[in-house]
Amino acid sequence: MHFLMRADLEAVRERGLEIRSQDGDFRLEKVAAHGSTAEIGPSDWVLIALKTTSNAALETLIPPLLHERTRLVTLQNGLGNEAFLAERFGAERVMGGLCFVCLNRVAPGVIEHYGHGTLSLGEYVPSGRGYLEELAGMFAATGVETRQVPNLILERWRKLVWNIPFNGLSIAAGKATVADILGDDALHALTRELMVEVIGAAAALGHSIPLEFIEEQIERSLKMGPYKPSSLIDYAAGRPVEVESIWGEPCRQAVAAGAPVPRMDMLYALLRRLC
Amino acid sequence: MHFLMRADLEAVRERGLEIRSQDGDFRLEKVAAHGSTAEIGPSDWVLIALKTTSNAALETLIPPLLHERTRLVTLQNGLGNEAFLAERFGAERVMGGLCFVCLNRVAPGVIEHYGHGTLSLGEYVPSGRGYLEELAGMFAATGVETRQVPNLILERWRKLVWNIPFNGLSIAAGKATVADILGDDALHALTRELMVEVIGAAAALGHSIPLEFIEEQIERSLKMGPYKPSSLIDYAAGRPVEVESIWGEPCRQAVAAGAPVPRMDMLYALLRRLC
Repeated sequence: MHFLMRADLEAVRERGLEIRSQDGDFRLEKVAAHGSTAEIGPSDWVLIALKTTSNAALETLIPPLLHERTRLVTLQNGLGNEAFLAERFGAERVMGGLCFVCLNRVAPGVIEHYGHGTLSLGEYVPSGRGYLEELAGMFAATGVETRQVPNLILERWRKLVWNIPFNGLSIAAGKATVADILGDDALHALTRELMVEVIGAAAALGHSIPLEFIEEQIERSLKMGPYKPSSLIDYAAGRPVEVESIWGEPCRQAVAAGAPVPRMDMLYALLRRLC
Repeated sequence: MHFLMRADLEAVRERGLEIRSQDGDFRLEKVAAHGSTAEIGPSDWVLIALKTTSNAALETLIPPLLHERTRLVTLQNGLGNEAFLAERFGAERVMGGLCFVCLNRVAPGVIEHYGHGTLSLGEYVPSGRGYLEELAGMFAATGVETRQVPNLILERWRKLVWNIPFNGLSIAAGKATVADILGDDALHALTRELMVEVIGAAAALGHSIPLEFIEEQIERSLKMGPYKPSSLIDYAAGRPVEVESIWGEPCRQAVAAGAPVPRMDMLYALLRRLC
């Protein structure tokens, strides 16, 4: 396994990767850390965990990694990442995963892991050729639980039902936690209205999410308390926020499909300037 | 003429009122400044310039000023101030004015005046009894230009066509000037959409504003450059923002009239928490 690193390269070369986990700490002493993809060369599987705000860099990062059957697996947030890869490197090799995990890189080469997570994996264009099973098998061998999903983009929209309102309002409403948002009558109502818009947009694009899903999301969120959505953490730390993949691309697709998304659009307009 | 003062009372008693104006500075040496309305007693005309965030105080401030034919003139911002006075003190004595003037109280007893303004005056319930002419005459005698409007509430809605988007977005989009808002494609579009909602709400309430009014407002605003709406100045200085009279009351009236105002409602929800 080879890692492409940027800021963490020197630290990892010297001290390896340290994982501090509620399930037990460990350290990978020897890590094949690289400063360029040319150094890594053609690979069978490429896991993409780059922040989507740096997606343009993929145009030069990916080519040295490709051979004819290389699989590209984007584990990134939001919408449009599979399409971005498909347009440039061929749809048939693109796969994606949604990470349901709670972790933070707290220092160069040091990762804190707060909640064990699962991965939902799917192909951009379902092939029935066993790639999903192969990928799931590799994760299983390392102890990572996965779930195979028949419609990857539907799963992305389902995740957006939560991310669009909560990540967005946590910034636009002035560093609000999930509890702040749900505890304010008007913001609580707005959260549900945004969820209705997201589900309507998904429906217009052929992805059916039942409206009861909203109630489940609200129930789940009420248990989170003063949880800070990841975009708020990035925003508060002065780091780039994934505005285009979480709000921009869903808004563009919704509008193109003729779905009315006035609140999503307004949130996007505000976040584009705030972030 | 008697002035009710709060924080400025001592300063004005000692040094009078100082006006620094582009039209010439002057000082009123002797000002009848009072600390309570009981001290002033029953009056023919009451000009109300209190910030709407303190409207509750009017319930105790007004009664000592009343005799049978006392006229109450609210010069406050936004919607609902005439109705507030009418419910408590009788609709027939309520009048209102919209101030188109640029000034700032910069220190106790010191007012800076940047642009000579006009007042649009109207009765809450038109009576045809000459009150408007009487009030306009008194202002004219002091050199203040006025305009008499047959439909006061229509004028309030016309002013809201500008105030709702620009005052609101200047705060919600992160201390944005008029130029910042109009220079950002998405915020510019949102401004126009908000204006359409305000005009739709006014129409649902029986007040007709032509859609061409939007173009005039945009044209006028493009000439303002990096102008800071008054709500942004209050917000940036940590002072209360008139959220209820500028956004809350218009939203409530729009919703009650069945007008769709998703963006106005969202802006109100955000401002309620931000301010």
